[in-house]
Amino acid sequence: MKNDTNRQVILVARPDGIPQAEHFAVRDGARPAPGDGEVLIRNHYVSVDPAMRGWVSAVANYSEPVALDSVMRAIAVGEVVESKNPDYAEGEFVCGLFGWQEFATTNGDNVWFRHDPDKAPITTALGLLGINGLTAYFGLLDAGEPKDGETVVVSTAAGAVGSAVGQIAKIKGCRTVGITGSDEKVAACTEEFGYDAAINYKTADLDKALADACPDGIDVYFDNTAGAISDAVYRQLAMRARCIVCGTASVSSWDPWPEGPRPERHMLVKRARMQGILLFDYQDRFAEARNQLAAWLKDGSLSYREDILDGLDQAPGAIAKLYAGENRGKLLIKV
Amino acid sequence: MKNDTNRQVILVARPDGIPQAEHFAVRDGARPAPGDGEVLIRNHYVSVDPAMRGWVSAVANYSEPVALDSVMRAIAVGEVVESKNPDYAEGEFVCGLFGWQEFATTNGDNVWFRHDPDKAPITTALGLLGINGLTAYFGLLDAGEPKDGETVVVSTAAGAVGSAVGQIAKIKGCRTVGITGSDEKVAACTEEFGYDAAINYKTADLDKALADACPDGIDVYFDNTAGAISDAVYRQLAMRARCIVCGTASVSSWDPWPEGPRPERHMLVKRARMQGILLFDYQDRFAEARNQLAAWLKDGSLSYREDILDGLDQAPGAIAKLYAGENRGKLLIKV
Repeated sequence: MKNDTNRQVILVARPDGIPQAEHFAVRDGARPAPGDGEVLIRNHYVSVDPAMRGWVSAVANYSEPVALDSVMRAIAVGEVVESKNPDYAEGEFVCGLFGWQEFATTNGDNVWFRHDPDKAPITTALGLLGINGLTAYFGLLDAGEPKDGETVVVSTAAGAVGSAVGQIAKIKGCRTVGITGSDEKVAACTEEFGYDAAINYKTADLDKALADACPDGIDVYFDNTAGAISDAVYRQLAMRARCIVCGTASVSSWDPWPEGPRPERHMLVKRARMQGILLFDYQDRFAEARNQLAAWLKDGSLSYREDILDGLDQAPGAIAKLYAGENRGKLLIKV
Repeated sequence: MKNDTNRQVILVARPDGIPQAEHFAVRDGARPAPGDGEVLIRNHYVSVDPAMRGWVSAVANYSEPVALDSVMRAIAVGEVVESKNPDYAEGEFVCGLFGWQEFATTNGDNVWFRHDPDKAPITTALGLLGINGLTAYFGLLDAGEPKDGETVVVSTAAGAVGSAVGQIAKIKGCRTVGITGSDEKVAACTEEFGYDAAINYKTADLDKALADACPDGIDVYFDNTAGAISDAVYRQLAMRARCIVCGTASVSSWDPWPEGPRPERHMLVKRARMQGILLFDYQDRFAEARNQLAAWLKDGSLSYREDILDGLDQAPGAIAKLYAGENRGKLLIKV
């Protein structure tokens, strides 16, 4: 081969807060060779996800912190370019934790699913047909149990997860109300993602706006934020409401642990529930969900937005960009 | 009849906080006569319940506030002494909202269930076979879904509801840990109600005591308190824990609304849920539950304590006594 390098993005310093460009370095490593039972994957796109902030934190969360001076953990979709594993054929596309790099080898352990590029664009493996759409699908349908005619409120409503939640709720016959952080995103919610109403929480009187948008109360709350947005939603829960805790994006630090109005009485008086979800609890149902999401995408029931950066050199600043809300859709990097 | 009076306890002032003796007056009213379709009930025992505090508050809760200068709302068990309703026979015992008084008439609307005194003592209709045992039964089994070998933590563990929860959890093969407020109640928990461990939250380091008592974490939390006890429990939830919010006894006022550590992240990381319950959502299953509870009582699997005051003259100070934790078992008044 003319070129045997492997462009990689390395974690070089541990951030205290949101990871910034200076916490990463881009370098050319050596292209790996697959061993027996392994495949070599050439990443086409790598993802930028809110979870990355937790992955580089010294505090263990769901998974071990990324080690300093190692390749940044990232979800990627790539092509099998060399296979020494009978389960994978060259030319197949796979999605998994292949890292912010051009090439990765794997024995299949960190492959989450195969993606057929004839059924949906490759990039959707990192968004609507990937963890975002799957999180929306299982969180809303399994934990939220939305029923025809119910009101579903979504925080970070225009985001990669939220926009899928809103649209799936609409498919299920619900009234959908999105909460988001700019007038531009409000417009995306109502014009592109089919929300019946959308609220800019930064400029609205949130209690009043929710009361206006949800005259019969809130039956399902899909939450990516915690914090003041949730407090306002809890106050307007309908009887037997279901609150799905999918993320806590509004909380900048858990040390000290933040305080807020106690939710117990809302849960009691409304016989409501609050439930946390984690996508990987549903891993054995990914195929079912991806088929359904692909069908909805094909028939036009689902829409999505992407914001694609060009090249791994853009990766170091990408998490900060995401947390600043500067992206205009699912944030990806074309390798 | 020689005596046609009706001893009654009247709400004469609206308390700001815990109802005290001065908020009530005892008087002799006229004994009512049942109209067509009605029955006359002679109360044998009336109940003293934490919910009474809410019933006399000006702030509507589940039900309308008790009107000033009217008979105090109360659960009672009594005998049908005169029936003009074909559904009720004279001599039957019934339980329902008959008030703090000797006699009440009803068309049956406020009768919750019939009680057969041959199957269990009459007083159990107000405790273990009444709202307390039923709340424990449905809250624990339906919302809590305890499984053999799981750890169940109960707050107000020695109380009328809590002691039933602990014992039912034990019947279901769980490890049971009670949280209560005195060494005497700790002893009642372990010696009488079969808890594997009990903690006096007023003297223990609650986090450490819970960690010691629940080495595998807490699978089910049956909560009557909210507040600092819940905060400590949330920190030690096991994966997929279920928290049942049955009461918020530790919160003395909801104006201003109290704050506490946000629970969302615990729910998320543990994929746990918090769920409020209200007994009357299960009213169509009361008979099933009462039969099961009576069978457990008969075979010795369930034990209960009662603290019986003698005469309606004791009623005015009884709610304050309950909130002061001075009772030694389910607090009742023999009429």
